[in-house]
Amino acid sequence: MEAIGRTRWVIPEGYIPAESMVNANEELLSHEAACILNTGDQDASVTITIFFTDREPAGPYRETVGARRTKHVRFNNLSDPEQMPLGIPYASVIESDVPIVVQHTRLDSRAAEIALLSTMAYPVE
Amino acid sequence: MEAIGRTRWVIPEGYIPAESMVNANEELLSHEAACILNTGDQDASVTITIFFTDREPAGPYRETVGARRTKHVRFNNLSDPEQMPLGIPYASVIESDVPIVVQHTRLDSRAAEIALLSTMAYPVE
Amino acid sequence: MEAIGRTRWVIPEGYIPAESMVNANEELLSHEAACILNTGDQDASVTITIFFTDREPAGPYRETVGARRTKHVRFNNLSDPEQMPLGIPYASVIESDVPIVVQHTRLDSRAAEIALLSTMAYPVE
Amino acid sequence: MEAIGRTRWVIPEGYIPAESMVNANEELLSHEAACILNTGDQDASVTITIFFTDREPAGPYRETVGARRTKHVRFNNLSDPEQMPLGIPYASVIESDVPIVVQHTRLDSRAAEIALLSTMAYPVE
Repeated sequence: MEAIGRTRWVIPEGYIPAESMVNANEELLSHEAACILNTGDQDASVTITIFFTDREPAGPYRETVGARRTKHVRFNNLSDPEQMPLGIPYASVIESDVPIVVQHTRLDSRAAEIALLSTMAYPVE
Repeated sequence: MEAIGRTRWVIPEGYIPAESMVNANEELLSHEAACILNTGDQDASVTITIFFTDREPAGPYRETVGARRTKHVRFNNLSDPEQMPLGIPYASVIESDVPIVVQHTRLDSRAAEIALLSTMAYPVE
Repeated sequence: MEAIGRTRWVIPEGYIPAESMVNANEELLSHEAACILNTGDQDASVTITIFFTDREPAGPYRETVGARRTKHVRFNNLSDPEQMPLGIPYASVIESDVPIVVQHTRLDSRAAEIALLSTMAYPVE
Repeated sequence: MEAIGRTRWVIPEGYIPAESMVNANEELLSHEAACILNTGDQDASVTITIFFTDREPAGPYRETVGARRTKHVRFNNLSDPEQMPLGIPYASVIESDVPIVVQHTRLDSRAAEIALLSTMAYPVE
């Protein structure tokens, strides 16, 4: 299959709840993810830049998404060049050297139950 | 009505929770669906390709969506050429021989209550 | 403000849960809505066509959205030319004589708590 | 980074629940937000116009989003030229003098648990 999508995507809404339900396992931990699909035959070198409300942007964070592979990148786990903070608003721009498609998802387990949100990221022309 | 939409759609986020609430009926079972609408006067032959994080893609899975019909395809039920796995990330590309429109929805009933997410799939130009 | 948007929109995912939480008031009743905005200076004459999995489409259902007004149309309330059914999958096409913008939202209160989903409808070129 | 996005965005669905869970802190209060990202090197002057079902639009509400900053504007907090009402449907148009990207999110904590929805706003050509 050919490489599908765009090389730049934007997610204006970002927020990783600082708390989770009691005894949450890895899957049910409050988290936010950028789900990236690379349908093409070349590995994708992806960089993520994080924007904040009151300081200069952080990054670039670097990820590789293999050819014909998907990767669900959890923002919680981004730690190089600096650890992603919890409990504050942020936004992200995701850039790739080959076309990809990006979807944004949050699982919020602050309460006893879970809540979910998801939307396709904004594809830049 | 004429055939509306595109012939290729992408859903980067995929994950079928492996658990459901106690005594969930068919409707409240944790599931993920690609909701497909074919407004045109010709049946749509649809193929679904599934991408994973650490192996080559699976598929094609084949579905038919009748003329002037909608079909909510549950990923859980895809079994030919191989059964869809639960509890791991995946992504999908949906292709059709006539224009269709595709929306992605998940119902997660792992906790005692349900959570929902939905977004329009990404329409490939 | 000028008239913003498109004259045709598609929502492939449709499902009105047949049950609601005990003692749900009008607001917390399980429902599905097409939220329509008409920013222009002319009233919008809107028609909604409903597609099913196993029968011919229903409609057209007719709505008016005033100039510079928004209208959140609940699918539950569509009754002419025929009552919208609960508990089965459907899809919709929304057409207008002037540009509008359409967003899809569901509130599901089958369990003791509520779940929400929302996405922008698909704008036809 | 250059300025990314569009200068006009539309959110047809708007509704701020009038109630929240008992003892909700600021974060868990029922609210609705327009998450705005300004990736460019110039501050963005943003105006928000609110549309209703049965009266003329309100606004413009004015916000500034700094260069290389994100701002999650809570509709609940809009009070000048008039206080945003709770518990009624509304819609919004968001305009900027430089390109921005806008995502819509609601947190509903009327029940004992929370529910979330989110979608990218509609980018006007």
